[in-house]
Amino acid sequence: MPRVSDRGVVLNQSPIRSLIPYARAAKARGIEVLHLNIGQPDIHTPPQGLDIIRQDDTTIVSYGPSEGLPALRSAVCQYYSKYTSGLSQEDVYVTTGASEAIQFALMTTCNEGDEIIVPEPFYANYIGFAQACSVTIVPATTTLEEQFSLPSPEVFAKLITAKTKAIFLCNPGNPTGKLYDREELASILSMARQHDLFVIVDEVYKEFCYDLSFTSCLSFDQYADRVVVIDSVSKLFSACGARVGFLITRNEAIKAAVIKYAQLRLCPPYHGQILAQSCYELGGEYIVQAVAEYRKRRQILHEGLAQIPGLKSYLPDAAFYNVVELPVENTMDFCRWLLAEYDHEGKTVMLAPAAGFYHNQELGRRQVRIAYVLNGDRLRAALNILSHALEAYASRHQSVALG
Amino acid sequence: MPRVSDRGVVLNQSPIRSLIPYARAAKARGIEVLHLNIGQPDIHTPPQGLDIIRQDDTTIVSYGPSEGLPALRSAVCQYYSKYTSGLSQEDVYVTTGASEAIQFALMTTCNEGDEIIVPEPFYANYIGFAQACSVTIVPATTTLEEQFSLPSPEVFAKLITAKTKAIFLCNPGNPTGKLYDREELASILSMARQHDLFVIVDEVYKEFCYDLSFTSCLSFDQYADRVVVIDSVSKLFSACGARVGFLITRNEAIKAAVIKYAQLRLCPPYHGQILAQSCYELGGEYIVQAVAEYRKRRQILHEGLAQIPGLKSYLPDAAFYNVVELPVENTMDFCRWLLAEYDHEGKTVMLAPAAGFYHNQELGRRQVRIAYVLNGDRLRAALNILSHALEAYASRHQSVALG
Repeated sequence: MPRVSDRGVVLNQSPIRSLIPYARAAKARGIEVLHLNIGQPDIHTPPQGLDIIRQDDTTIVSYGPSEGLPALRSAVCQYYSKYTSGLSQEDVYVTTGASEAIQFALMTTCNEGDEIIVPEPFYANYIGFAQACSVTIVPATTTLEEQFSLPSPEVFAKLITAKTKAIFLCNPGNPTGKLYDREELASILSMARQHDLFVIVDEVYKEFCYDLSFTSCLSFDQYADRVVVIDSVSKLFSACGARVGFLITRNEAIKAAVIKYAQLRLCPPYHGQILAQSCYELGGEYIVQAVAEYRKRRQILHEGLAQIPGLKSYLPDAAFYNVVELPVENTMDFCRWLLAEYDHEGKTVMLAPAAGFYHNQELGRRQVRIAYVLNGDRLRAALNILSHALEAYASRHQSVALG
Repeated sequence: MPRVSDRGVVLNQSPIRSLIPYARAAKARGIEVLHLNIGQPDIHTPPQGLDIIRQDDTTIVSYGPSEGLPALRSAVCQYYSKYTSGLSQEDVYVTTGASEAIQFALMTTCNEGDEIIVPEPFYANYIGFAQACSVTIVPATTTLEEQFSLPSPEVFAKLITAKTKAIFLCNPGNPTGKLYDREELASILSMARQHDLFVIVDEVYKEFCYDLSFTSCLSFDQYADRVVVIDSVSKLFSACGARVGFLITRNEAIKAAVIKYAQLRLCPPYHGQILAQSCYELGGEYIVQAVAEYRKRRQILHEGLAQIPGLKSYLPDAAFYNVVELPVENTMDFCRWLLAEYDHEGKTVMLAPAAGFYHNQELGRRQVRIAYVLNGDRLRAALNILSHALEAYASRHQSVALG
């Protein structure tokens, strides 16, 4: 039998994946699992967007333009006018989710073996995308103690080598919920110019800012040539299964390369695109309501976490995630135990161990990511379960130690 | 300004792309362009499939399983029972079009720098996919004179090196319309076993066979471990924009790697999947009618081409393509001229110069691919225009030579 490729074997798989069989088994035992582990919002997709699909009278679902449907590109460009004035619809490439946009960004900015500097903790799949594109991630470590603040340009500069091609940011951050402000971004962009680097920014959570307002890196005209932005409708319009994202740049050489990768895979999915177009055209009020709902949940989460002894947390700026340090030795073990052995009145919670969000997994050993994608009541119930579970886990460990 | 990646610059772009601005300009001048150049069928997507989407009452378009919706995998597995009995739905991975399935197949069978042997002419995008995956295509040349018959195992064997990981076939063939029979496939599979190679087969045109019946490489139980099949709903159900394809294999190591690449990009598009599921469940009669329609067109094309002097052609077995040698020096020039300078009563035709389907483009210099995706009347009209155009082109060249 011929051998599978080495790269297929070593491709990173998020450690969270290993918990899925335990969650499945818990449910099979009749236990209700409250999911705080995933970024799948429970908020409805805009009904107008779904109606567009129901009313569509297409008779042939044919190939569309590789760069995306013109009306969608135009709607996105219009939507961005609140963040920047300099964008034209020719700068917007529709992709099959942000996932594909990230791959296009890496393939067009980096050669094989090139490096990107990424603040860690970061979205776990960045590792896999970098591997798939033969790009090396160089982490710039941030800490819970400093609320995952963006490292200074000096810290980034020290990590630059002859192979560095880009600074890769997630703003607001998954898993941290950290928002970088205009001044911080300007200083990174300035440093990037000095070292002739691209700045790739994953901005998929940009609407979910609860205190300060969001600055898109596309709004810096003087750096237009080096900025590549990743966006998506998945979280913005609670339409993860539509598979519609965007790569946005004003760098003409990147655009010329992106369109070739786009042509190679022919086109993005039709129905997702018409859904997305309608959402961008009608979505203003929807977004306001969604943000209000997440702001409420953030508060519930923050207050609930503050009451759990030994737990370290902070009030996240944005997105719908929070990285929390738990009073346990290893959150992977704890999260497995939650699913395999624990329940509180027939219920348990599933959390994402933070190790998978770090290049050096050891740094996330005592941390978890909490996604506040449950409504207020369920979020409170989940926090109550977590609190009881930590107590039970501590006394269990104590008795193991005594025994 | 930082530089775009070298790989983004050298990524192959089909030469057909360079004709698109000429087609656009012709249309802007008011000329009707009959498209024989693309594989976009004019046949309607099954109405039942479209109805499923219109009736869908989903309120959150959420992430689905990375391997695809269970009901779709099951429907595909059921559909395949007419070709093979040994398949389970766990062998079927839903991908975002065959495009993604091809990339998954290359990433999981080949390391960077590995080689695949592909009969040429082949689907032009194979070059780009191989480049994107850092895999080298080694062509096994076939000829129009031999109706693009599959080379013998000996020919393949001579091309095998220490880096060869797979034989990559397209059956039935795009652009050739060639169907490989059971005996030919068995001999290639046997040779592959001898040299410990995978056999990757793009079977997206498998239903469109007009004389002989189709053999899927999945039907050889004794070679189950080395076969990876690519499939898609794009051509089968005239649903190119749905972006739903499949990678099907019974090799457990390949499956373990494929699921990781699948998880990385989260999931295939939701609406395309429910459309596809419905089509597979209801599509039997639809396929019979579509095949009858293409068979009729194949005959019209064949008879029409036979009447054009100096043109070399053959009756294709399958798919809806034909490679034709024209009495011109260079079909790229001729195809450009058709769009830029010619019209017959306000109409012209767009053809695909065959150079882009060859590794050695010179081999396709006098050939074009004709896609018979127009209805009978339009196909006849297109052939009539082509006939007049060839005459005009010859006399124009003569007068240029005399002048």
